Amino acid sequence: MKLSARNALNGKVIEIVKGQIVAKVKVDVSGQTVTSVISNEAVDDLDLKIGDSVQAIIKSSEVIIAK
Amino acid sequence: MKLSARNALNGKVIEIVKGQIVAKVKVDVSGQTVTSVISNEAVDDLDLKIGDSVQAIIKSSEVIIAK
Amino acid sequence: MKLSARNALNGKVIEIVKGQIVAKVKVDVSGQTVTSVISNEAVDDLDLKIGDSVQAIIKSSEVIIAK
Amino acid sequence: MKLSARNALNGKVIEIVKGQIVAKVKVDVSGQTVTSVISNEAVDDLDLKIGDSVQAIIKSSEVIIAK
Amino acid sequence: MKLSARNALNGKVIEIVKGQIVAKVKVDVSGQTVTSVISNEAVDDLDLKIGDSVQAIIKSSEVIIAK
Amino acid sequence: MKLSARNALNGKVIEIVKGQIVAKVKVDVSGQTVTSVISNEAVDDLDLKIGDSVQAIIKSSEVIIAK
Repeated sequence: MKLSARNALNGKVIEIVKGQIVAKVKVDVSGQTVTSVISNEAVDDLDLKIGDSVQAIIKSSEVIIAK
Repeated sequence: MKLSARNALNGKVIEIVKGQIVAKVKVDVSGQTVTSVISNEAVDDLDLKIGDSVQAIIKSSEVIIAK
Repeated sequence: MKLSARNALNGKVIEIVKGQIVAKVKVDVSGQTVTSVISNEAVDDLDLKIGDSVQAIIKSSEVIIAK
Repeated sequence: MKLSARNALNGKVIEIVKGQIVAKVKVDVSGQTVTSVISNEAVDDLDLKIGDSVQAIIKSSEVIIAK
Repeated sequence: MKLSARNALNGKVIEIVKGQIVAKVKVDVSGQTVTSVISNEAVDDLDLKIGDSVQAIIKSSEVIIAK
Repeated sequence: MKLSARNALNGKVIEIVKGQIVAKVKVDVSGQTVTSVISNEAVDDLDLKIGDSVQAIIKSSEVIIAK
């Protein structure tokens, strides 16, 4: 399955903190940390664990540039 | 000025393609390419050029995890 | 590859209109039309054509409820 | 009031789970489930209940296509 | 029809620039300009014109805070 | 640091409610209230307090127009 989203950053899960509805997931991407907030349901559905190899998927229209 | 957005990925602009309203901007972030679609107005306002050091800013709620 | 995004709506591509940077893609999902704006690059990369079976992927935090 | 968002999927609320700040709301849209994460404030403001007829509103730039 | 989106900023359309797929629309909101990028289809569907009274609708999860 | 996001609405923080993972932050922008949902981590990182002068940053592609 290919995605239209242009950004698929390879990395490893380094932190998972679950709340009641959403969870914070941090991924190490080549030394830079990418933080995601996804639903607890997704964490369980993907059986996410520390150390998992994952991709951080980001639609290009969601990326702001700062200079 | 500090941002609430948790993701600020450092990189260099490697491509800028302008359309009529929006532009595609590619940034090399530690060897992985991040693609952004921003307004032409923003490209002009930031005077974006190939080789510029920039940050790709992404709110954590916009990051999907794939495993 | 499983996605954390909770919404994956199955449908068929019924329209593709390309601009200079982004394209409008319409998908028939069980009789309701879902419209997406993605990059031309993505349309080419996925080799999208009318009639293709696709999924419309939407992060739950992007869905507004109206009543 | 008309919205510029191109996607307004008609459906019925089938689940509401409230956390401290945000809530997960699931809507049955022609047999496919659409999941939304909105603020608790919005759930109360719209007086959302199971069985309500609602629309899932999604801006076209938020829809990723997978093939 | 009530929306779960928490932000509905009242204002007047002051600029509309159409590209091939998307359009830039500027709205004066109490003296501050809000810029939106929506589809041409939406501009036509809403019959948007300079001077129209509109609302800029923004989901709270899309708002970044800077300090 | 300049941002590509076109919307930077000046205002004052009038409410902060923290959950387990995310927080609701309300900002008074020229008499209209803007609501944001950001991570608790961001609230702490920006040391956000009631009365702080802040900007509500919104990418133009996240703004829906209603008429």
